[in-house]
Amino acid sequence: MPSIDIGSLSLEQKASLLSGADMWSTRPLPEAGLRPVMLYDGPHGLRHLEDRSDTADIYGSAPATCFPPAVAVGASWDPEVAAQVGAALGREARALGVHVVLGPGVNIKRSPLCGRNFEYYSEDPLLSGVLGSAHVRGVQAEGPGASVKHFAANNQETERTRISADIDERTLREIYLPAFERVVTEARPVTVMAAYNKVNGVYAAQSPWLLTEVLRQEWGFTGAVISDWGAVHDRVAALAAGLDLEMPGGDGTGVARIVAAVRAGALDEALVDQAVARIVALAERVAPATGDLDVDGGHALARKLAAECVVLLKNDAQVLPLEGVTRLAVIGAFATAPRFQGGGSSRVNPTRVDTALDAIRQHTAERGQTVTYAQTAEEAASAEVAVVFAGLGDHEESEGYDRESIDLPADQIALIRAVAQAAPRTVVVLSHGGVVSLEDWHDDVDAILDGGLLGQAGGGALADVLFGVVNPSGRLAETIPLRLQDNPSYLNFPGEAGHVRYGEGVMVGYRYYTSAERAVRYPFGHGLSYTTFDTGDLTVTPTGEDTARAAVTVTNTGTRYGKHVVQVYVATTAGKVRRPARELRAFTKVALEPGESRTVTFDLDRRAFAYYDITRSGWVVAPGEYRVQIGADAHHVLDEAAITLTGDKGLMPLTLESTVGDWLDHPIAGPALVKKMNDRLRDLSPEEAALAAQHPDGLRMAAALPMSKLITFTGDTFPADFLDKLIRESRVV
Amino acid sequence: MPSIDIGSLSLEQKASLLSGADMWSTRPLPEAGLRPVMLYDGPHGLRHLEDRSDTADIYGSAPATCFPPAVAVGASWDPEVAAQVGAALGREARALGVHVVLGPGVNIKRSPLCGRNFEYYSEDPLLSGVLGSAHVRGVQAEGPGASVKHFAANNQETERTRISADIDERTLREIYLPAFERVVTEARPVTVMAAYNKVNGVYAAQSPWLLTEVLRQEWGFTGAVISDWGAVHDRVAALAAGLDLEMPGGDGTGVARIVAAVRAGALDEALVDQAVARIVALAERVAPATGDLDVDGGHALARKLAAECVVLLKNDAQVLPLEGVTRLAVIGAFATAPRFQGGGSSRVNPTRVDTALDAIRQHTAERGQTVTYAQTAEEAASAEVAVVFAGLGDHEESEGYDRESIDLPADQIALIRAVAQAAPRTVVVLSHGGVVSLEDWHDDVDAILDGGLLGQAGGGALADVLFGVVNPSGRLAETIPLRLQDNPSYLNFPGEAGHVRYGEGVMVGYRYYTSAERAVRYPFGHGLSYTTFDTGDLTVTPTGEDTARAAVTVTNTGTRYGKHVVQVYVATTAGKVRRPARELRAFTKVALEPGESRTVTFDLDRRAFAYYDITRSGWVVAPGEYRVQIGADAHHVLDEAAITLTGDKGLMPLTLESTVGDWLDHPIAGPALVKKMNDRLRDLSPEEAALAAQHPDGLRMAAALPMSKLITFTGDTFPADFLDKLIRESRVV
Repeated sequence: MPSIDIGSLSLEQKASLLSGADMWSTRPLPEAGLRPVMLYDGPHGLRHLEDRSDTADIYGSAPATCFPPAVAVGASWDPEVAAQVGAALGREARALGVHVVLGPGVNIKRSPLCGRNFEYYSEDPLLSGVLGSAHVRGVQAEGPGASVKHFAANNQETERTRISADIDERTLREIYLPAFERVVTEARPVTVMAAYNKVNGVYAAQSPWLLTEVLRQEWGFTGAVISDWGAVHDRVAALAAGLDLEMPGGDGTGVARIVAAVRAGALDEALVDQAVARIVALAERVAPATGDLDVDGGHALARKLAAECVVLLKNDAQVLPLEGVTRLAVIGAFATAPRFQGGGSSRVNPTRVDTALDAIRQHTAERGQTVTYAQTAEEAASAEVAVVFAGLGDHEESEGYDRESIDLPADQIALIRAVAQAAPRTVVVLSHGGVVSLEDWHDDVDAILDGGLLGQAGGGALADVLFGVVNPSGRLAETIPLRLQDNPSYLNFPGEAGHVRYGEGVMVGYRYYTSAERAVRYPFGHGLSYTTFDTGDLTVTPTGEDTARAAVTVTNTGTRYGKHVVQVYVATTAGKVRRPARELRAFTKVALEPGESRTVTFDLDRRAFAYYDITRSGWVVAPGEYRVQIGADAHHVLDEAAITLTGDKGLMPLTLESTVGDWLDHPIAGPALVKKMNDRLRDLSPEEAALAAQHPDGLRMAAALPMSKLITFTGDTFPADFLDKLIRESRVV
Repeated sequence: MPSIDIGSLSLEQKASLLSGADMWSTRPLPEAGLRPVMLYDGPHGLRHLEDRSDTADIYGSAPATCFPPAVAVGASWDPEVAAQVGAALGREARALGVHVVLGPGVNIKRSPLCGRNFEYYSEDPLLSGVLGSAHVRGVQAEGPGASVKHFAANNQETERTRISADIDERTLREIYLPAFERVVTEARPVTVMAAYNKVNGVYAAQSPWLLTEVLRQEWGFTGAVISDWGAVHDRVAALAAGLDLEMPGGDGTGVARIVAAVRAGALDEALVDQAVARIVALAERVAPATGDLDVDGGHALARKLAAECVVLLKNDAQVLPLEGVTRLAVIGAFATAPRFQGGGSSRVNPTRVDTALDAIRQHTAERGQTVTYAQTAEEAASAEVAVVFAGLGDHEESEGYDRESIDLPADQIALIRAVAQAAPRTVVVLSHGGVVSLEDWHDDVDAILDGGLLGQAGGGALADVLFGVVNPSGRLAETIPLRLQDNPSYLNFPGEAGHVRYGEGVMVGYRYYTSAERAVRYPFGHGLSYTTFDTGDLTVTPTGEDTARAAVTVTNTGTRYGKHVVQVYVATTAGKVRRPARELRAFTKVALEPGESRTVTFDLDRRAFAYYDITRSGWVVAPGEYRVQIGADAHHVLDEAAITLTGDKGLMPLTLESTVGDWLDHPIAGPALVKKMNDRLRDLSPEEAALAAQHPDGLRMAAALPMSKLITFTGDTFPADFLDKLIRESRVV
């Protein structure tokens, strides 16, 4: 409970707490003993700007550790990695006097073109939610608060400050909200950041449905809602919708508008008091500055975590690891000038930067291997193995704008192809925030190591994986398609005329590729290891009404220690809505010594089987069969077991406006109707019967008619009292 | 003007005219000299049922000629074919005492699964509209009236009586309404039939927007709006929306409700009078019964027209025509029991039925060729060429339900493959209403002749084409995809929970396949001939403000008389909305003797270049370059010429809520803003300048910010008076 007596504050004092004092802090009330709250970016490293009044400087921040951005953490599939990033941010925040660290971002990667995808985890809401939740817990366990963002449906940069994301409610509930829901309900972040964009025509920062109904009433959020920087257009509407703190402060207009609205009777002062109480609670909740920045410790941790995020996409003839290679050529500018973070508000001023070449040289020196470095392909011919560092440059993707292509720059493609032609064996190491196409050179190279963006110690981490010091265990958190055009949002992205239609509905990412049986380059969930794993003995047992437990045994069948991600999908065609071919419902990462086996279990709750039913405004488990699948990835099922769930009864009661199909489907009314019809057929003249026999589809054709219309065509076949009786009886079920 | 004095009628008399008397007619008012109007199906043949009170009998109609259904007429790409079908229907309607012939159907083939696609022309609105317009003119020139249907967006059978087609307005205006618009404005049908379904939540039969704003106020429709049979749910709401006649009459409830609503003051009697005036005008407009059914003439015409609709998909090594073949095997049940029409309300009781086998035997007898017939493949081995008749059976597609697959039945596939294995050469002749996949056997056969559904004389027409008596000139009016899953509506069809999301927007049919560069089996517009054509000398010249004339010379470069369809597409990336890769904007069918050349011209009006701009509620020609393309089909451009159009100016005036991107794009404000910024950059300290140089994307990142937000970050760079001046100046353009 706030220890400040809100009742003793003037309206002006209260309103002043609801807009920032400057770019990075709230207003204090020293007379009431209330300190300012310092809120700073960002999701993978602190961007602490000393001069809080400088609205233009977004890059001159104090040095801090740049940890692996979310694109990498997503590929770890490991909530422990996310938690350690969060905890480290919490410690550095304390050292820098930051109270709230803005992040994590749990928006869904709807399109590979979104310029800010490097700040997000995945195309899957479960993976995003589990990692975001671990991140928040990590930050907050250290004292500072977190701010989960950008709530909601901020899935592109183009026109982000005004575009309306037009999304049906089932899709919102199943795809774009669950990660926020999980973070809010599991990790209880002290703040939620409202997004710039509109959702179905209403600014997210001014949406009572999002900020009050869903966030507070349904999910039980008790913290403060803050705006993305500049997201509030109507301060009074935003406050009424549930937005507590407008950031940044700007020129004070917001404060004046709140005061004026209360005075004019257009805004209930109780809403002001409620928001003030939340800001006061926030100020009293977050930890004060303490400790120093641990530069060496932060860097070492960043390297360790980064190595957990590397995905081995391809490894023909076990060219990796490079332990036994005597002559190695390292090629490409990224080996010496690494790309390790993205542009925009999350850009960190790193305490130091590892280059891959330096780290490789440390490994080769230890092993007596020779290594040459060049920016061009000629060196490759004389090596046993050439390692090309390639990817997207700093200015090819960023917060603030979206990409228009998933191709690598032409010079990068040319370099890879030239090396592949010259070298006996070629390994490509990729650095990029958004997915890049591999099609121009994939088949020409022997191995591909996908680093995403790994933070300031990524160079060392990549070297560790290349030389087998770390066995890669990352898995793709986003599908790599064959072509950008294959993405289900392709022709609807980034929208037009103020609207972006989420025409693909719930069929986002692998949900689309699997459901439309569309081939991809590498599926969601894909990733190789230097060892091999076997998963078997799948059992699925009911644990209650529409819940189940799955157990599976994982064995390291190779010769190296390694980690394996067990992916549990659920597939069903139960119910009357279109379900994705399968959906990720649980996962865990298991570390195993060679030969070691472990049985892992997963508790699948109702939601693992449910869809969001807009006709009932709730989660519904349809009665029927569900297959619980262990996937090597989203496209390849290793094992599956079926269970039948009772599901939700709740049959819609029949009316005369129900269709004939609804009547026929009903367990009581259907058989009675068919019997009546057969009785009627027996009364037909031979001529009529012959005609009817020629057209057995008559009833099928009528199935879409409302019963009220059918009976206008069927004379006295279905008398009113007969139907009335069935309507009454149908309510019993 | 109606000759009946509506003012002299009682409210009850007037209301009685606004619901049908029975299944197939309106109520007469003998005391006022008003006769009943007889309205009968259908689009390709009369389905005249003598007993108008029998609500159950939908198949016992009087014999009439079954002309080629719309699926075939669509493939003719020839408005003269549609006009002749219409005129013949008009003559048969007169002979049968029918005043209004219900048809044509101009709904768009959004999904190949729609069970009623055989009643519709095409996936393209221009082709649908031109053919539908010709059909209506044909009918009405003979005296009876036509009823264009189903208005609007009735693109599926599943849940058709209550589902809401959720479609954004640009898509409605560009795809689902233009065929109706063309028919209404060009051919002036006496009635328009309102569809069963809802459009964006409102029943089409009760939609003031569709029935009054769009249809009457925008398009100038002056005829009567009638309901699809049973489509009215609220008679008073339907009348108020602009629906004049409810069909069928039912139990009189509708009449009573209108009377009661007027008495209660809930409905303006002027609306009743207006609808009555339209029904009276209809009754006085349509021709009375006259003449006899010309059975022989109808059949001969049906055969001639059907032959114009056949599409030669494939003809390796010129296996067709069969003129020189001495030993021919005819195989498959459809050769003797043809599939020639679809199920449901359009099903005609044909006056006679040609079988392909009989017609083939006439041809072979004339030529001294031998022909054998079998239902199984064994006969094929001893023939030179085997002709397999295959397709979809009568009960595999129909009005009333949708298909779930585009595959042929397994036994048909097996038959084709067996014949292809046994015979030296194999020709497949397909009969089907909806598109079928060719993938299981396409590469195994030498030729494919696609008949769609050809009406009662289709057997003769197919034989005429097989033997070269008619040179095939049909072109696909619907893409044949490689897989059903490739269709852009695949995962959104047929919808769920009362809604079907038109998630693909304007990207329907070839617009999707070309824009997403998705390979297809045969493109929209594809069709071969027994001769060859050359198109060249394309010129495109402006003819006014944003209009142009295209001219192209077509030459028959082969050795046979034949017809060629010249297809004119327009391609552009002008404007801020996503345009399809190309859109059909004009076409014509040219008949040429061997060696003959003809230059054809096409006038392209504003609409040929325009898109529907929802921000301006109107058609907009974006300034920029447009390529006018001559397509062999939608995927293959033979020639193109570019023109630059001035387009609509109408720049949006700038405000502080316009984005920085809007400001930069503006021809006056943009350069002024850049200059100001450069001035500012000159003022930077060396340190600041170095930082800015490292981040050239700053401005790009800011492009999506409203100017009102940018200036909160940029200090005094853009003073208020500077911006105010630009806002004033931006209005001048």
